[in-house]
Amino acid sequence: MSASRLEQEIREQPQALARLLDGVEADVAPVAAVVRDRAPAYVLVAARGTSDNAARYAQYLFGARLGLPVALAAPALTSVYGGESRLRIRDGLAIGISQSGRSPDVIEVLRAAHAGGSPTVAITNDPSSPLAEAADFVVALRAGEEQAVAATKTYTTSLAAVAALAAAIGPSDGDGAALRRMPEVMTQAVELAFADAPALDGAADDRHLVSVGRGVNLATAFEVALKVRELSGVVAEGFSPADLLHGPIAAVRSGARALVTAYDGPTRGSFDEVVAALEARGAVVAFIGEDRTLAGDRPLARTPAGVTEWLTPLVAVVPGQVHALRQAALRGLDVDRPAGLTKITSTF
Amino acid sequence: MSASRLEQEIREQPQALARLLDGVEADVAPVAAVVRDRAPAYVLVAARGTSDNAARYAQYLFGARLGLPVALAAPALTSVYGGESRLRIRDGLAIGISQSGRSPDVIEVLRAAHAGGSPTVAITNDPSSPLAEAADFVVALRAGEEQAVAATKTYTTSLAAVAALAAAIGPSDGDGAALRRMPEVMTQAVELAFADAPALDGAADDRHLVSVGRGVNLATAFEVALKVRELSGVVAEGFSPADLLHGPIAAVRSGARALVTAYDGPTRGSFDEVVAALEARGAVVAFIGEDRTLAGDRPLARTPAGVTEWLTPLVAVVPGQVHALRQAALRGLDVDRPAGLTKITSTF
Repeated sequence: MSASRLEQEIREQPQALARLLDGVEADVAPVAAVVRDRAPAYVLVAARGTSDNAARYAQYLFGARLGLPVALAAPALTSVYGGESRLRIRDGLAIGISQSGRSPDVIEVLRAAHAGGSPTVAITNDPSSPLAEAADFVVALRAGEEQAVAATKTYTTSLAAVAALAAAIGPSDGDGAALRRMPEVMTQAVELAFADAPALDGAADDRHLVSVGRGVNLATAFEVALKVRELSGVVAEGFSPADLLHGPIAAVRSGARALVTAYDGPTRGSFDEVVAALEARGAVVAFIGEDRTLAGDRPLARTPAGVTEWLTPLVAVVPGQVHALRQAALRGLDVDRPAGLTKITSTF
Repeated sequence: MSASRLEQEIREQPQALARLLDGVEADVAPVAAVVRDRAPAYVLVAARGTSDNAARYAQYLFGARLGLPVALAAPALTSVYGGESRLRIRDGLAIGISQSGRSPDVIEVLRAAHAGGSPTVAITNDPSSPLAEAADFVVALRAGEEQAVAATKTYTTSLAAVAALAAAIGPSDGDGAALRRMPEVMTQAVELAFADAPALDGAADDRHLVSVGRGVNLATAFEVALKVRELSGVVAEGFSPADLLHGPIAAVRSGARALVTAYDGPTRGSFDEVVAALEARGAVVAFIGEDRTLAGDRPLARTPAGVTEWLTPLVAVVPGQVHALRQAALRGLDVDRPAGLTKITSTF
């Protein structure tokens, strides 16, 4: 049986990451210089779908490591209400993330930022796209063409582009070195993910999956949920532990599945309460993480050991991608062309 | 049968709104003066749960009517990562929304903003709460004690507080007058909601509800989903049409229910495509709106006619509240004390 394009692209992630890292320092250096020079009050990130999960990573990474507040743009503000009163984006830095570079509402946010005198950055897999043309600076993903509808290698390269930008802006010299080791780490992550993902399989008729993550891995929780949902049609939702406990857990019933992405580090204390609450409701909990410290004897898909917390999202998503691929295969679905989805959504 | 506290509080919303409006102009005037004086580059809003949906309303309202970008805070940034690197919130205006005024992570965001020299505002039902004490300015909701776990009157008064703040900041004098008519409009809205909500009932074993709204009513879509979810345990999710089409619709199956909140105005063109896509998947679509222009012959819960678009969220949520109440009653659940939820979530 020949591998699906999706599986090929999941397996290409180490090479895509290596290509990104070969070129990204030159791309991010002028952006970092502008940030140091102008000291924007905040960063505005515009994105949709998978790219919006990369934007969520930027929110936590820039906030935690640079002290820089990040606003996730409401694209409808420019596309729906943009006619009469344009958003005044001044004293900011605007970043648009779009693998295709063709999301019209993301382009509109960058145009509004430019009009407000704020520097603009496009993170895109197509450096000749309209988004790239609209931006002052372009960070090219270099992921190669992505043919599967569900984004994988453009997601992890987007995360790496965001991480490279943070490393270039920030004061710490060790960050760049940690990032440059990631292609090798990603090779191990892909191997581990394919080895361990069967441990995450539930029954193929599972209807509800809750994906939980915290801090930088809230992005992972959202992206794993989106992948499972797009590929398998399972109602999969991403939550932080606090948000899940703050009401939405009421809909978790016996037999629902929960996938908790959890690492040692600042977020470690966040998981005991939510796992206990999920299990009290009869949910079946599995983990993505480095080892069994947090998972105990529950099903676990491992990622390589020793990755610094802020870079764990690059590898934590991989078992989720493979899990989504398996869930689709178990249901006999076409993973390269999920029913009713298209690669580029141009919806306003 | 005596009415539940929840039903009493839904019915109290016109009076709560009238009390809020009696005092709110004096509360918001000094905030509006500071905004005009200091012209913050952006607004940062911190909130959890239902209050986070009011924050979403602020994002669209301040953006569309004032051109002022709004960032929704990631509270975990201060609670989880706050130890070493504090968020630098300068040249901003920070608003914390919490009915109890006791969410520790919301309080932390205001403290960080104060440390960064940004003015801070507490929107809370308890003007002597720690949140109020931490803020430079307090906008009191005056909703009266809310005893049901699910927030209703504190949500609509929070929306009105946000609207009053926008009206005080903005250039248009007519806005205040439109807002002052809302208690009377809300009286009609409550009557209409109890009359029409039965049209929204599905079978009591429905497992999946998709709540859709756009622009200022994205907040309504999220809040209706949260109410249904908290009270009835149905997996209810809120989406904008664009976000739903951008992947998550893959999990909508035949027999799923969709509740679309749609009004004439700038967002009107957003609904045809998503309703067609939902119905193509076999979802049963019902509407909340002013009349049958958008709903056609589908089930409709009406809200009073002639409300200006930016104030529709105050009344659009009411049929959703009553729908959630009915869904819980149909399942024999205690609407005042949903299983496993508490009124104040202090989770970091």
